[in-house]
Amino acid sequence: MANIFPSRRVRRTPFTEGVEAAGVKGYTVYNHMLLPTVFRSVEEDYHHLKSAVQVWDVSVERQVEVRGPDAGRLIQMLTPRDLRGMLPGMCYYVPMVDETGGMLNDPVAVKLAEDRYWISIADSDLLFWVKGIAYGYRLDVLVDEPDVSPLAVQGPKADDLMARVFGDSVRDIRFFRFGMYDFNGVSMAVARSGYSKQGGFEIYVDGTENGMPLWNTLFEAGKDLDVHAGCPNLIERIEGGLLSYGNDMTDENTPHECGLGRFCSTQTAIGCVGRDALLRVAKEGPVKQIRPISIEGDLPPCDREWPIIAKDKRVGTVTSSAKSPDFKTNVAMGMVRMTHWDAGTQFTVKTQAGDFAGTVEENFWI
Amino acid sequence: MANIFPSRRVRRTPFTEGVEAAGVKGYTVYNHMLLPTVFRSVEEDYHHLKSAVQVWDVSVERQVEVRGPDAGRLIQMLTPRDLRGMLPGMCYYVPMVDETGGMLNDPVAVKLAEDRYWISIADSDLLFWVKGIAYGYRLDVLVDEPDVSPLAVQGPKADDLMARVFGDSVRDIRFFRFGMYDFNGVSMAVARSGYSKQGGFEIYVDGTENGMPLWNTLFEAGKDLDVHAGCPNLIERIEGGLLSYGNDMTDENTPHECGLGRFCSTQTAIGCVGRDALLRVAKEGPVKQIRPISIEGDLPPCDREWPIIAKDKRVGTVTSSAKSPDFKTNVAMGMVRMTHWDAGTQFTVKTQAGDFAGTVEENFWI
Repeated sequence: MANIFPSRRVRRTPFTEGVEAAGVKGYTVYNHMLLPTVFRSVEEDYHHLKSAVQVWDVSVERQVEVRGPDAGRLIQMLTPRDLRGMLPGMCYYVPMVDETGGMLNDPVAVKLAEDRYWISIADSDLLFWVKGIAYGYRLDVLVDEPDVSPLAVQGPKADDLMARVFGDSVRDIRFFRFGMYDFNGVSMAVARSGYSKQGGFEIYVDGTENGMPLWNTLFEAGKDLDVHAGCPNLIERIEGGLLSYGNDMTDENTPHECGLGRFCSTQTAIGCVGRDALLRVAKEGPVKQIRPISIEGDLPPCDREWPIIAKDKRVGTVTSSAKSPDFKTNVAMGMVRMTHWDAGTQFTVKTQAGDFAGTVEENFWI
Repeated sequence: MANIFPSRRVRRTPFTEGVEAAGVKGYTVYNHMLLPTVFRSVEEDYHHLKSAVQVWDVSVERQVEVRGPDAGRLIQMLTPRDLRGMLPGMCYYVPMVDETGGMLNDPVAVKLAEDRYWISIADSDLLFWVKGIAYGYRLDVLVDEPDVSPLAVQGPKADDLMARVFGDSVRDIRFFRFGMYDFNGVSMAVARSGYSKQGGFEIYVDGTENGMPLWNTLFEAGKDLDVHAGCPNLIERIEGGLLSYGNDMTDENTPHECGLGRFCSTQTAIGCVGRDALLRVAKEGPVKQIRPISIEGDLPPCDREWPIIAKDKRVGTVTSSAKSPDFKTNVAMGMVRMTHWDAGTQFTVKTQAGDFAGTVEENFWI
């Protein structure tokens, strides 16, 4: 692969200095910002993530802040998920769709107060959609991107490391809840969440100037826990069935196709954008859906759609793939048509390096 | 710099195969897609662009297509530029702003018909904004991204190369006009435009499958013209004063700060989004504005904001910089406060590699 060309448009983060010092070997660009993808090697990072604790620069999860009297109404307009039970201190995974039910992003909403939310986004400029809807409906809200950059602490020893820095009470934070914790006199949201299945936290670091001090404090505190710089790991996230917006779904897909139908409460009178289209989808069910797929052989990087072929017909697309050390196969996922989505179904996966045999799995690998 | 990690989310283009075969050495990511940044070297590409002809994969200039009875009304809502004189066959540079007058994108609008436009975008998901406004105002339009990927032909020999492929009538296309031309039985818009000051065209390639055949045809036809694969050149575009959204302006800036006040006809009753804020700006004038700046010394890459300091006070920001072989200095641009924006003003530019002396220039270098 070629190098990334330096420019201000591809933004550095409050932690890039630490990431560079830790020897980052690869980046991707995500929300116009640098996201590390590999430090030692994808395999070494993977084993370490599953056994120790890592600190991840996930500043790319930018916040869309919505505040004002109409904040709750706007957030509910943006997602088919029923938010009536959401209280301050909770995080909700909220698929967001356009008027035809096409996925625009799959962010996490963070309810800071009755009239103040963050939408912690995947890779698309959701800010523009939220601002457009707020403007079009003349809602009484302010929508902008604050100087808040998440830092994730992930892995089986995450609780131990976090307790040393923020105190033992972080151990009591429940999944997808957050509390406010002090670091150097600044109050920050600390949530039990993160883009791995190994457990851990995300710290919503408030203020660029607090980034490196917190980064350094975590590494100092975690020396004997074998803390390392890490990043979302391609292998681990596929094993765990964690979808990636832009890879495994785009605005072409409905939440139902992405296996997110359970987050669509279109029967209630919540009146979100896309409700009519999603009611139709819910009635008929999707004709294709994301499935775990194992693939045999020595695969190239999955840098493009891989068509899934059965009896010379296109029946789906593989969208992510990686060689799994623990499961001794290529773990993959993709959209598969109903005719071929049952576990055990075999087909051909066409890659840039030739054809490979794929099989639909019953479950993801975790 | 580190490598770009392969994933489908960072999309390949219809021409990536040709770009790779031509030996691309660097990429950036732009609108979730690969944009080449260097082939031989930035300097060698620069000299060649100024003397011969290059073919550029600028697929990243995605189109937002707006069609339907309200298309014209929507496009006018999106920009402060007065579009009443725009006829089919014309391209207009149209700054687009939010309700506070902050720049969301600086695209080129292409009027295909009275009820059909393309917005050919810079690096932000303008699609989301356009869809949000259309939905909020219940306009009778369809808004989507078609399978159209621009291929630019730039340089002093661009007319000769294009005439060989599309016929001599391309020589008569006027600046920022387009005509429909046939390639292999497919009708494509060919405009006299492009992100350089060396002259040339942009072909709006309709259909991914037509990408590589056209690429190959151009290279075959241009052998004796020394045609090479190229890309927007950092040095040449700064010399020419071509702004880059995300580098030289963001949603923090008004068009007036970007020197684009002449495109803001806020006095007419066009009722665009942001009109009230821009009326205020037009009355008072901006307090900072983009200026050409020369900087002496051996500079690092401009991969972050460089503060401009005078008498220990922050008076601006350098946003792009490159060493110019033709002008024997570092050509740069940045936002400078009114107190220090007059030509000849000197100040200190703080970079990651130390302080350098900068001077405001009267004009860009071309």
